[in-house]
Amino acid sequence: MAKYAIGVDYGTLSGRALLVNIENGEEIETSVYNYPHAVMDETLPDGTRLGADWALQHPQDYLDVLRVTISNVIQKSEVDPADIIGVGVDFTACTILPVKKDGTPLCFLPEFKGEPNAYVKLWKHHAAQDKANRLNETAAKMGEEWLKLYGGKISSEWLFPKVWQVLDESPEIYDAADYFIEATDWVIWQITGEQTRNSCTAGYKAIWNKKKGYPGEAFFEALDPRMKNIVSTKLNCPITSLGEKAGGVTAEMAAMTGLKEGTAVAVANVDAHVCVPAVKITGPGKMLAIMGTSTCHMLLGTEERHVPGICGCVEDGILPGYFGYEAGQSCVGDHFAWFCENCVSSEYLEAARKEGKDIHVYLQEKMMEQKPGQSGLLALDWWNGNRSVLVDVDLTGMMVGMTLLTKPEEMYRALVEATAYGTRKIIESFEQNGVPVDEFYAAGGIAEKSPAVMQIYADIIKKPIRISGSAQGPALGSAIFGAVVGGGYDSIFEAAEHMGKLNEKCYLPIEENARIYDELYAEYDLLHKYFGEGSNDVMKRLKAIKNRTVNNG
Amino acid sequence: MAKYAIGVDYGTLSGRALLVNIENGEEIETSVYNYPHAVMDETLPDGTRLGADWALQHPQDYLDVLRVTISNVIQKSEVDPADIIGVGVDFTACTILPVKKDGTPLCFLPEFKGEPNAYVKLWKHHAAQDKANRLNETAAKMGEEWLKLYGGKISSEWLFPKVWQVLDESPEIYDAADYFIEATDWVIWQITGEQTRNSCTAGYKAIWNKKKGYPGEAFFEALDPRMKNIVSTKLNCPITSLGEKAGGVTAEMAAMTGLKEGTAVAVANVDAHVCVPAVKITGPGKMLAIMGTSTCHMLLGTEERHVPGICGCVEDGILPGYFGYEAGQSCVGDHFAWFCENCVSSEYLEAARKEGKDIHVYLQEKMMEQKPGQSGLLALDWWNGNRSVLVDVDLTGMMVGMTLLTKPEEMYRALVEATAYGTRKIIESFEQNGVPVDEFYAAGGIAEKSPAVMQIYADIIKKPIRISGSAQGPALGSAIFGAVVGGGYDSIFEAAEHMGKLNEKCYLPIEENARIYDELYAEYDLLHKYFGEGSNDVMKRLKAIKNRTVNNG
Repeated sequence: MAKYAIGVDYGTLSGRALLVNIENGEEIETSVYNYPHAVMDETLPDGTRLGADWALQHPQDYLDVLRVTISNVIQKSEVDPADIIGVGVDFTACTILPVKKDGTPLCFLPEFKGEPNAYVKLWKHHAAQDKANRLNETAAKMGEEWLKLYGGKISSEWLFPKVWQVLDESPEIYDAADYFIEATDWVIWQITGEQTRNSCTAGYKAIWNKKKGYPGEAFFEALDPRMKNIVSTKLNCPITSLGEKAGGVTAEMAAMTGLKEGTAVAVANVDAHVCVPAVKITGPGKMLAIMGTSTCHMLLGTEERHVPGICGCVEDGILPGYFGYEAGQSCVGDHFAWFCENCVSSEYLEAARKEGKDIHVYLQEKMMEQKPGQSGLLALDWWNGNRSVLVDVDLTGMMVGMTLLTKPEEMYRALVEATAYGTRKIIESFEQNGVPVDEFYAAGGIAEKSPAVMQIYADIIKKPIRISGSAQGPALGSAIFGAVVGGGYDSIFEAAEHMGKLNEKCYLPIEENARIYDELYAEYDLLHKYFGEGSNDVMKRLKAIKNRTVNNG
Repeated sequence: MAKYAIGVDYGTLSGRALLVNIENGEEIETSVYNYPHAVMDETLPDGTRLGADWALQHPQDYLDVLRVTISNVIQKSEVDPADIIGVGVDFTACTILPVKKDGTPLCFLPEFKGEPNAYVKLWKHHAAQDKANRLNETAAKMGEEWLKLYGGKISSEWLFPKVWQVLDESPEIYDAADYFIEATDWVIWQITGEQTRNSCTAGYKAIWNKKKGYPGEAFFEALDPRMKNIVSTKLNCPITSLGEKAGGVTAEMAAMTGLKEGTAVAVANVDAHVCVPAVKITGPGKMLAIMGTSTCHMLLGTEERHVPGICGCVEDGILPGYFGYEAGQSCVGDHFAWFCENCVSSEYLEAARKEGKDIHVYLQEKMMEQKPGQSGLLALDWWNGNRSVLVDVDLTGMMVGMTLLTKPEEMYRALVEATAYGTRKIIESFEQNGVPVDEFYAAGGIAEKSPAVMQIYADIIKKPIRISGSAQGPALGSAIFGAVVGGGYDSIFEAAEHMGKLNEKCYLPIEENARIYDELYAEYDLLHKYFGEGSNDVMKRLKAIKNRTVNNG
């Protein structure tokens, strides 16, 4: 009899279950459930107004995902639940909520229903930037060693700034919470009845280190005396390595989903990180880029290195036994979407419509009629700041080389090339700091759907690019972890070899293009230094003038 | 009885006659004639193919303009030709043709009908760039003093590169020509029967100096031994100051146009230069900008100064008795047109259409909802190179500050601001080199139709801007010169006072805006230096890569 595993992938707007044959990774059945509350960025369900940059979610939606999608894939596939040996879960992160000792979210309690700080703060909740700034200043001043492992900066999206916001604005919520927990760990708790904390979110989002633990009480006290004991009072749960078993499916969850009681459940994981085994990466030197609206880069290393401008270096943070490195570009598909929304002439839209093509497809076909360098254009990919390697949200976009003959497809291509130069910068930053990058893998919407973009990337980074073989990389990755804890494989590495999937297609650098791109990258590098590294801070001054005029208005 | 003058203005695609009351400049009647041959940039009338960058015209079209438009305005106005006391003519320049001793264009002769070099080379004929380059190198090497009066560079659009091209490619045409002459002087010759040469085109386009004449034979010999005697053999005609009478209308021309035989005709002029008296400028310190697809700046001074990057300084070149300074921006309206053609979303086009507005009007209204600096954008206005003050056709466009929230109207405004910063640069270059600019006047399509643009200019240059009162500035200017030579006024200055016209509207700098623009201009200045003055020649290197890839293709 075939054996199966289920991966559950929680995205920003929906959750998905994927039922996979553990022998070969074959995707048998899938089901998607859109969160009824979606992202709450204007009001709570009861109408309470939210401030600027808030982004909340409702934990009931997460439970409904389990109920709807797992029972769906079991029913539709007609697989015997006894043959489903394991379940894995991945989630957006850092997405956190305050809960009681038994796991009940504070927002489920009648007294906190109208309290924004009682809800789930989604990864893209950006209202704690002031806290992040103060945290970074304090850490730098106190010479906190761990800062270097995060490229020198903690993001406002991460756990401590978000929890600090709760304490600052709603101390009664802070006090009422027995734990603050990642949603991904909370879902595992709901499935198994046991609280666990995974090493991935602990390491990347909560400054936890396998050898040194969390930052010390002195540091938290310096931030806010009330936070001195935050670790022992609000995060008090041991950390479990990825690949370990969290527990078994409870009777209640079995009844709700159709899973068999006691089915093995893996420790929680994160959507980007769980993609690594899904593309068969099982060791160092292979960078995975998950390319969507933004790009997330995953890389394994055998040593702990300080690489400037990365998002984090976490032991066991991606696969057990390795140091997991994460870097990121804050604006990739978003660049192209911005361009199509704002800068494409109606003539082009009309032509695309006539040919029955999406405007992106139309522009990408047109841009490939030209050779590298032929447009005379060069851009810096900073429309949404620069995550890696400059970690500077105040940087902005730049394009140079336009003439009266410049066409939309040329500007579009310049933006594509700019994001590829940005990727090359990240690769070089790792290489220069002792973390080798020998191969490049890509997953996500752009990797799957845009051959033109991927060829340009191969030409610019001068490495072959292998493409994920699954359109459901995260869910497949979670199923792989499920298969391991269910006893299907002895290790995640073995499971990845059998269940991970790569596309036949591999993009090879075209030498002639790569030579021209080497020249253009040298120009990118010069402008990167000039605008990004302090020679001329015109972008920041323009932003300061902008903020001043907006605030005076 | 009222007295009248006629101004004839030859543009790139049509010619216009304007009948004006000399007492007050009232525009009585006008008539336009489109050139049947328009601009020949692909073939001659007989099908002979033209090379890249060629732009020719047919002199028969110029004669037809006189025949059609002058008789039209006389007939329609019912003015007695005896009351028309003078005629003036202005033209694009440098627009030149080879002719025989009696004024017959070589292209009228059957043996040269199929010879491209026998036709009129229009101002925008750009196929003599190699000649201009060699001319500039030679002049620099030989330390020719006059080079400084042209901002350090002679344009490929001017007389000697164009004539040299004829000699080089078609020596038989060069030999057969008794003269090379500006079309504007040629038209006056056709009207009066007498060859004259005006001090404006001689000075600005043919390197003639009132005190020193043309460059010496040694210089021309260094260019090409066959050109040694070019001045004495092909340009052998005295130069007449603007404001002088060229002669009287011939019997033949009188019969053709309806003018009275003997009517006074002014020495020929150029379209931009003749606008100066049309806006009542009669002395130094008042800069006139003629703002269309490109902008031309006119300024009078009392001394000969070397101002880097201007187009020329010519004694009697604009008004008699003054040094006439000309500068230019090669891309102004063209920037905005490029943007609207290539970069405006269909959503905006649709909205403009619904409101019944031209897309430029729509964007300009939208952009004025914001304050200076609010977009965070800054651009360099070099989409078509930089004429003044850098004289560098290889510079290209640049924009910085874009984010994912950047809107089309913000980029449009950034382009408008960039051209205004470019104007401020020109003004400062004059001021820093001893030629004062106290007042600013604007004429042309943008000045008349775009109040938003003009307000931004006023805020950026920090001077009040007065607007031309006539939509036919050049034709009015020519009529003013006609009125003077016809005895209506004792001087061009007196005539300008009575016949010149200014709009009631004057754009005053808004102090609050000017303060912010001072800050933004400082940023423009930094980037101007960085990209334009040698710190980082990335624009030129990108262009070199582009040319290489195009040529290899």
